[in-house]
This record gives sequence, structure tokens and C-alpha cells, in this order.
Amino acid sequence: MPNKVHAPKISCEEALCAFISSQESSSIHEINASVIDLLFLVGLGLYLDLIPLRSLVALARCDKIIIDAYTSGPKYVVEELLKILKSTGKDVVLAQRFMLEGEGIESIVWESQDKDVCVAVVGDPMIATTHNALAVEAAASGIRAVVVPAPSIQCCAIGALGLLSYKMGKSVTVVSPKNGVVYEYPYEVIKSNLERGLHTLLLLEMDLERGYIMTPCEALKILFSIEQKRNEGVLEEQTRVVILSSIGTPSHRVCVRTLGELLQKCDNCGDPPYSIVILSKKLHPLEEEALKYAERGLLNMVPIEGSREVLEQVANILFR
Amino acid sequence: MPNKVHAPKISCEEALCAFISSQESSSIHEINASVIDLLFLVGLGLYLDLIPLRSLVALARCDKIIIDAYTSGPKYVVEELLKILKSTGKDVVLAQRFMLEGEGIESIVWESQDKDVCVAVVGDPMIATTHNALAVEAAASGIRAVVVPAPSIQCCAIGALGLLSYKMGKSVTVVSPKNGVVYEYPYEVIKSNLERGLHTLLLLEMDLERGYIMTPCEALKILFSIEQKRNEGVLEEQTRVVILSSIGTPSHRVCVRTLGELLQKCDNCGDPPYSIVILSKKLHPLEEEALKYAERGLLNMVPIEGSREVLEQVANILFR
Repeated sequence: MPNKVHAPKISCEEALCAFISSQESSSIHEINASVIDLLFLVGLGLYLDLIPLRSLVALARCDKIIIDAYTSGPKYVVEELLKILKSTGKDVVLAQRFMLEGEGIESIVWESQDKDVCVAVVGDPMIATTHNALAVEAAASGIRAVVVPAPSIQCCAIGALGLLSYKMGKSVTVVSPKNGVVYEYPYEVIKSNLERGLHTLLLLEMDLERGYIMTPCEALKILFSIEQKRNEGVLEEQTRVVILSSIGTPSHRVCVRTLGELLQKCDNCGDPPYSIVILSKKLHPLEEEALKYAERGLLNMVPIEGSREVLEQVANILFR
Repeated sequence: MPNKVHAPKISCEEALCAFISSQESSSIHEINASVIDLLFLVGLGLYLDLIPLRSLVALARCDKIIIDAYTSGPKYVVEELLKILKSTGKDVVLAQRFMLEGEGIESIVWESQDKDVCVAVVGDPMIATTHNALAVEAAASGIRAVVVPAPSIQCCAIGALGLLSYKMGKSVTVVSPKNGVVYEYPYEVIKSNLERGLHTLLLLEMDLERGYIMTPCEALKILFSIEQKRNEGVLEEQTRVVILSSIGTPSHRVCVRTLGELLQKCDNCGDPPYSIVILSKKLHPLEEEALKYAERGLLNMVPIEGSREVLEQVANILFR
């Protein structure tokens, strides 16, 4: 890959004006490195081989790669990718939370003024984990924030289960009680979605810095404790729940159960990362069929043999 | 890539039982071609270089590739990909609608019993276009439907605008009046989302077989005509609308306007494919900032120089 040729340094405002006028004169604006500094927010997808080509091109081009290692499962994607990137001699950093929040953001933006920087995130950089603050801070400094999308659990959950995308309501994250206070918002989201006949995707809290991954059993107990307190009939014994584990990876698994079954004898269904779908009361017949096959593995999202080798071959082309 | 070694033909039920028991004995079930026949539903992403590696591996492995050419913009992805695939001597078919619906499904499933078949779709195969019926029909015949996810407009719209994913409501497609009857459902979805403080992603009807692509101006006129009829105050002069055009491609553009401005002097903002986001009345301050930069191109999702060449290099490794 050609090295970036740095433009003479100009102020942020000058850069912004120059960019805007260049954009006005042409509707085609494929990224040209010499115009302005760039911060790449790069999606890695849910597994090594789900990375889009554009993400690889961005990683190859950047001088510095910061991997968000605190919100997603490192053993699935991050560690392997780290090995590949390190073997190419790239400046790669595994970021802890403080490096991507608050003052950490300023320091990344500052670094982007000297060289192209990538922040790499498992899933999609703006969805599974929202890095909006980082993008906004960069743009405010006249640095173009380039988002490279990739498959996230938000889309993959629908595809892995064969649910219809227009039957998906708003999604929400379940978090563990903080100082004894239970966060009831997910219950309200489920209620509101159920009232409209929609499914709810629940993301489960994950904090890898302190080694915490909420299990589906834990999440369901939290939600059911809210039901017992509020008694609004949102979560009933017969409510159908889908537990998704390791979606898109070789350990991909899907379990469809009733809440009653899971409260009696809970099964996390497989290995993390986990998510849950609370099904709407009435499913489309196609969804009903698809779920059955998804549970049996006849509809799935597992890697194809040889994908790992392909990634290495491609990385070899790009990074050397 | 190694050619598929066909297992001796067994009945669908036998295959299903064999698969289920093989799955029970091992949680790792990376796809092994010799176990069972496969139908791949492969996402291509929104632009050539947004294709995940796994999709390329699937395309390379399949004997027959059927490209869904009637629901998405061929000039953006399909035509170029077709060129690359054809140059490798693959059996590639551009599918018309009838080939992927009704009896067409049976014929694809039948073909999958003899060889590995890919149905390739711009965006994500189960989201932007839902191919649930195809997956279910294959699974019902004991053929494993393997979904390969890819970036779809559903996720890319959020990322391209810097919106927060938990502020996104249910999405819906706007279709043109049929036999003079206006389909009012999108209006109801917008209303319900606005009541809950959520944004609405509108997909616009596209039928490339009859060369029809609904423009944002057309869609907004349809929606406003419903407002005038029902007069429920859902769409007002000051309602803020984002028009997205060619997201993820070199012509990527984002325009933020009020409905009043667009009704006075409509601007489609750029080239198809189009989509629209109806913003909730109250935006998070980060969303407000991000939108401003997205419109100026300082937050964007355009391809990186050299991506096209990388795709060709990778295809060369995989397909030859």
C-alpha cells in the first residue's frame, strides 16, 4: 500500500472550508488521503472472516490501530486479528475503556492530526458499540471520521433466526443492578414492543475489563424480578425467548424456549457473546418455520471451511 | 478451492437426523461440505468493497451463483461483481423476480441437492431483502441454508448519520399507490415511532425489472398526501427529514431538511439507491452534532482509494 503523503498543515477551519468547497464541486469524493487527516472507525464483524474488504484496506493503510477490547469478546476476533496485525509490524494497541472515552477521545483526535488512525471494533463501530462521541470530536477538529460498517449482532440476530426485519422493534441492553438498583428500562421496551407485535433484541452487559459477561440466565432473572415487582403481565411463563450464543462463529447456537422452562432450569445455550430475542406473541408462519430450523442448525451463520486461511492470504497481500 | 465431495444421497429426513446428531456430539460445527447439501444466502454489502471475506469464500466455493438483480441497484454492485465472477468462468445467473419467488424457490432448492448454490444479494440477504422463504424451503428439504451477513442499509443508515441505534424504531418500506390505492401503513409506523421518540428508517420501493426507483421527493409527496387526508399531525412543516443517497458508495450523500423545505423545492440529494430517515422530534445532542457533520461529509462512509483493486486481487486468489 502506498504511504500517506501528508498535506501541509492548515487550521481545522481552513481544512473544513476546503473540504466543503471541494465537495460542492464534485459529487464523487472517494477518499483521497492528501486532502485532510482521517480517523477511521472500522467494523470487524462478528468473526474473523466476516470482516469487509474495506475494513482490511483501512487497517492496512493506517499508521496506528487502536482495538476496542473492552466491549466485545476478544477471544473470538480481537486476539486472532491482533496476532495477524502484529506479525505485519503495525503499531497496534488494545484499548481499555478510558482510552476511548472522555480525555481518551481528545488524545486519539490529536494523534489523528499527525497520522491516519484506525479505531477497530468488533461488530459495527456505530451500532453494537456506538462511537459517536469519537466521530463527532474528530469532525469538530476538521478531521474526517470515516465509518466502515460491518455485520453487527443487530442485523445478524435477525438473519440467524430468519425473523422478518420489519417485525423488529427497538433494541435495548440489559445491565446488572448497580448499587442494588435494578434498571427497569429494558422491561418497558419489551412491553412497548409487545404491544405493537414486535420482537425485542436484548444485548447483554459485557465489561471485559473487569471480566464480566452477563449470561442469558442472569438477564432473564433480572427481567423476571421486574415483572414480579410490577406485575404488568409483560413477561409470562409462556413468553417465548430465543437465546443466541456465539452468532456467526464456529460455536454458533440458537435455543428457543419458553420463559417458564428457562426459569425452572436455565440453559445459557452455549458460549459468549450472548444475546436474547423476546419474541412477539404472534409470529409470521415463515418466522415460526425459520426458528425451528435455526434451532436445529439447518438455518445458520457458521463460518465456511478455509475462511481463516483466506484472511491470512488477504492480510499478506495488504499488509506487506 | 477444493471441489466439493458429494456424500452418497440420502433422504431429507436421514440427512436431518444425521446432522442433528452430529451437532449434538460437538458444539463446533464449522461447515463441512461433505456432510450435507448447502444453499448459501450471501450478502454483498452496499458497495463492492463492503463485501465480507466470508461472502467471497462462499462465492468461490459454489458451483452456481444466482444474483438477485431486481431489488437492488445493479449499477453499484451487481454489474461489477458480475464482470469479476464471469471472468473466472463461474456459472453466474442474474435472477429476475420469478426465479426467486414461488416455483422459482423450488427450482433453486432442487438444484442445491446436486451442487452448492449461492444466492447473492446486495446488502444483507435476510434484511434489506428478506429471503426467508428460500431459506425455509431449503431447510425443509434437509438442505442447510447458510446465511452470510453483510452491511445493509438498515445498519449503514444509522452509522452514516451518527444516530444512536437505541433511538431507531421499526423501519418500513414506502410503496407507490397500486390501482389508485395509497398504502398508509408507513404513516402509521412513523406516527408510532414519533410517539415513542424514535427515528424511522424508510426504505423506498425499487423494482428494477420495470426500471422503477422511487425517489425521496415522490415518497415524501405520498406521505404528505396521507397527512393531508388524515390530518393527525404526524408530518408537519417543521418535521426533520434526512435523505440518504448512495450510502457507502463513492457518491455517498446525506441531506438534512425540514419537510416544509422539501415540499416547496424538493431535492433528491443525489443518485439512487435512496432511503429516508424521519427524525424524532428530540435528538440527543451527539446526534444533532453528528448529523451536521454527516451532511458536510466530515462523518461519512465513502470507499477508500484502492479498494476496487484489492477486490480484484482477492478474487484472483479465491477464484483461480
